[in-house]
Amino acid sequence: MAGAGEKPSSRTRIWRNARLATMSPSLPGLGTVDDGAIVASDGRIVFAGPAAEIPSALTHDAEIIDCGGRWITPGLIDCHTHLVHAGNRANEFEMRLAGATYEEVARAGGGIVSSVKALRAASEDDLVRETLPRLDALIAEGVTTVEIKSGYGLDLENEKKSLRAARRMGEERAVTIRTTFLGAHALPPEANGDKSAYIDLVAEKMLPAIAADGLADAVDGFCEGMAFSPEEMARVFEAAKALGLPVKLHADQLSNLHGAALAASFGALSADHLEYTDEAGAAAMAKSSTVAVMLPGAFYFIRETKKPPIDLFRRHGVKMAVATDSNPGTSPLTSLLLTMNMAATLFGMTVEECLLGVSRHAAAALGMSGETGTLEAGKSADLAIWDVEVPAELVYRIGFNPLHARIWRGQ
Amino acid sequence: MAGAGEKPSSRTRIWRNARLATMSPSLPGLGTVDDGAIVASDGRIVFAGPAAEIPSALTHDAEIIDCGGRWITPGLIDCHTHLVHAGNRANEFEMRLAGATYEEVARAGGGIVSSVKALRAASEDDLVRETLPRLDALIAEGVTTVEIKSGYGLDLENEKKSLRAARRMGEERAVTIRTTFLGAHALPPEANGDKSAYIDLVAEKMLPAIAADGLADAVDGFCEGMAFSPEEMARVFEAAKALGLPVKLHADQLSNLHGAALAASFGALSADHLEYTDEAGAAAMAKSSTVAVMLPGAFYFIRETKKPPIDLFRRHGVKMAVATDSNPGTSPLTSLLLTMNMAATLFGMTVEECLLGVSRHAAAALGMSGETGTLEAGKSADLAIWDVEVPAELVYRIGFNPLHARIWRGQ
Ligand SMILES: [Zn+2]
Ligand SMILES: [Zn+2]
Repeated sequence: MAGAGEKPSSRTRIWRNARLATMSPSLPGLGTVDDGAIVASDGRIVFAGPAAEIPSALTHDAEIIDCGGRWITPGLIDCHTHLVHAGNRANEFEMRLAGATYEEVARAGGGIVSSVKALRAASEDDLVRETLPRLDALIAEGVTTVEIKSGYGLDLENEKKSLRAARRMGEERAVTIRTTFLGAHALPPEANGDKSAYIDLVAEKMLPAIAADGLADAVDGFCEGMAFSPEEMARVFEAAKALGLPVKLHADQLSNLHGAALAASFGALSADHLEYTDEAGAAAMAKSSTVAVMLPGAFYFIRETKKPPIDLFRRHGVKMAVATDSNPGTSPLTSLLLTMNMAATLFGMTVEECLLGVSRHAAAALGMSGETGTLEAGKSADLAIWDVEVPAELVYRIGFNPLHARIWRGQ
Repeated sequence: MAGAGEKPSSRTRIWRNARLATMSPSLPGLGTVDDGAIVASDGRIVFAGPAAEIPSALTHDAEIIDCGGRWITPGLIDCHTHLVHAGNRANEFEMRLAGATYEEVARAGGGIVSSVKALRAASEDDLVRETLPRLDALIAEGVTTVEIKSGYGLDLENEKKSLRAARRMGEERAVTIRTTFLGAHALPPEANGDKSAYIDLVAEKMLPAIAADGLADAVDGFCEGMAFSPEEMARVFEAAKALGLPVKLHADQLSNLHGAALAASFGALSADHLEYTDEAGAAAMAKSSTVAVMLPGAFYFIRETKKPPIDLFRRHGVKMAVATDSNPGTSPLTSLLLTMNMAATLFGMTVEECLLGVSRHAAAALGMSGETGTLEAGKSADLAIWDVEVPAELVYRIGFNPLHARIWRGQ
């Protein structure tokens, strides 16, 4: 694995004797190739396909890696996380299991406000140090791209601190990081219940400052009764649009506020959660090519019973991604393999849908379709090589990591 | 970690600067000690308690290990697995998700019969090689004792082969293995539907031969409409009793055949699954000190909706354990930490119940209460040292392994 920031070696590398799940949209299903090979140069894939078809011009002075018949997939992509946070909420979890009510937990300092307090008290270095083990858990399972949201700072300085810590994850480890500004996550205590004034702050002060510093690749919000209304989110999205930043939305998780349709109307990269999304929402997402990001970890952890309308998304041709939603309050989950199993077991997604959901469609949810998510010439040479007999094993097993090797940008 | 079979070093070792969750029955809850220490000699704990109370006679020439304030629990115990098996059923999983019926899966060679076929075709060496990665996944999370059942051989030679492979796991790795003969798991194809004749074979031929070879530490069965009746199981249990072998039972998983009460009437070490157990069953288990082994992985994977009666077990004072049930058909799960999270999230077990369930109570489910499962003088020095702030984190996190170090028999 290349050290972070290291220049990719220019020497051509060839992975041979492999079975490929290319995830290429020009092939059916997982785009499998039985006797496959991948050629990478300068960190990019220059060939992926049948070994017999490698152009001889590419093989000069190449380093050959024999994959022993193993499967290669694109490096996995976790397209929705809150990985940068301080502390954990294990005590709250323990209290709840012992029968404490939400009020008792809140009185004991629990809930999202405890994560905000902890994050504000932490330094940027603290955040980096606390987040690295979580990132390492994802990386150990072949993840090569991770999206990280802010949203526990809820004021300019602390949101910037979170996003800087997120960017630093990509310097500390051989992984691609995409950052998302989630100022409209929750109302901070100092807002004294004035959502409108806080949304003004997010849209008019925080967002422009963060955009000016280049700290965010996208803008997100939490549209829910307990968080922000569609109208409030629209104000944030207008501001993002004016700054040229793509948007995403935590939508329709606990009720149907038509968040999916709102996101689609702004051409959002993705709408996420979507348990309560209706057919009009699915149709709107299809039209705007907004990816539906499924977050079964949160569904599992907070014991939701209403599943997202997978069949509607299928019927309307909405692309589905799958992500950990890794966060301390509702999804303390750091395994993308397990997340696929949950998407299959709890939501009934097929093996193919799960695997496309952590590769090609996850890339689309981050606006990175040109960059990663498939094994195709031109893409970053991000690979995961697996000790499995069939790709379905990656979804079927629970709490098992069959990763043989992970390649990021050719190394 | 000691190599397998290596003689434990006789040099005394002291783990200091630690917080202990001793799980001692003489202390409340997890039996925590804040500034704790453990002293081990010849592979046994000779002291576990407050650091200030270490008898000075024990410290001579000791090796001191500073635990940096970390938590120590007993090495974890997975008291119900089918870890030795051949092949996997990922294809069946994939077919089911794609909408195939049970009949279509069966016609394609799926179901338990496929696991029997694969196991019979595998050599003992094949089984060892296939099982080691699963065992390694458990070990990586601090597991020091694993129970392994037969039950995919279903004839004498293949059941013996499974149990020999299970015993070899304990030579290949630094772990304690307990084997369980599960001949009464399912009816083999060659029995042509004659359950009674097969039970005769199990009770009169297979069991005595396996006992004579010392291959089994206990005897188990699957009591269910699709498997064996209480009367059939009673015949197996009578035979086990005559041979001096303790019994266990897969009971009341899919319907209430009063399997828990049957197990209790034979003084079973444990009854396992228990989704449909009624109050009479719980009362009988309490009276016979039969441990209730909760298997949330199977509940999750096959999407059961009826939970085991945790409250009944609490009210009657039945000890509860938690185990992976690791098997290819209904629980392809190899993480005991995740299993605890499932027991909490899906069954509402408390943090304390989950942690006792993989330590003291799991030891009881294996008849090993004198040997392991707590941090107390006289027990095997099996320890797990954790990078957590509170023990609740071990249950709260999903797909994350905070193990710092694992000690088996003092090494
Ligand atoms: Zn989220
Ligand atoms: Zn079982």
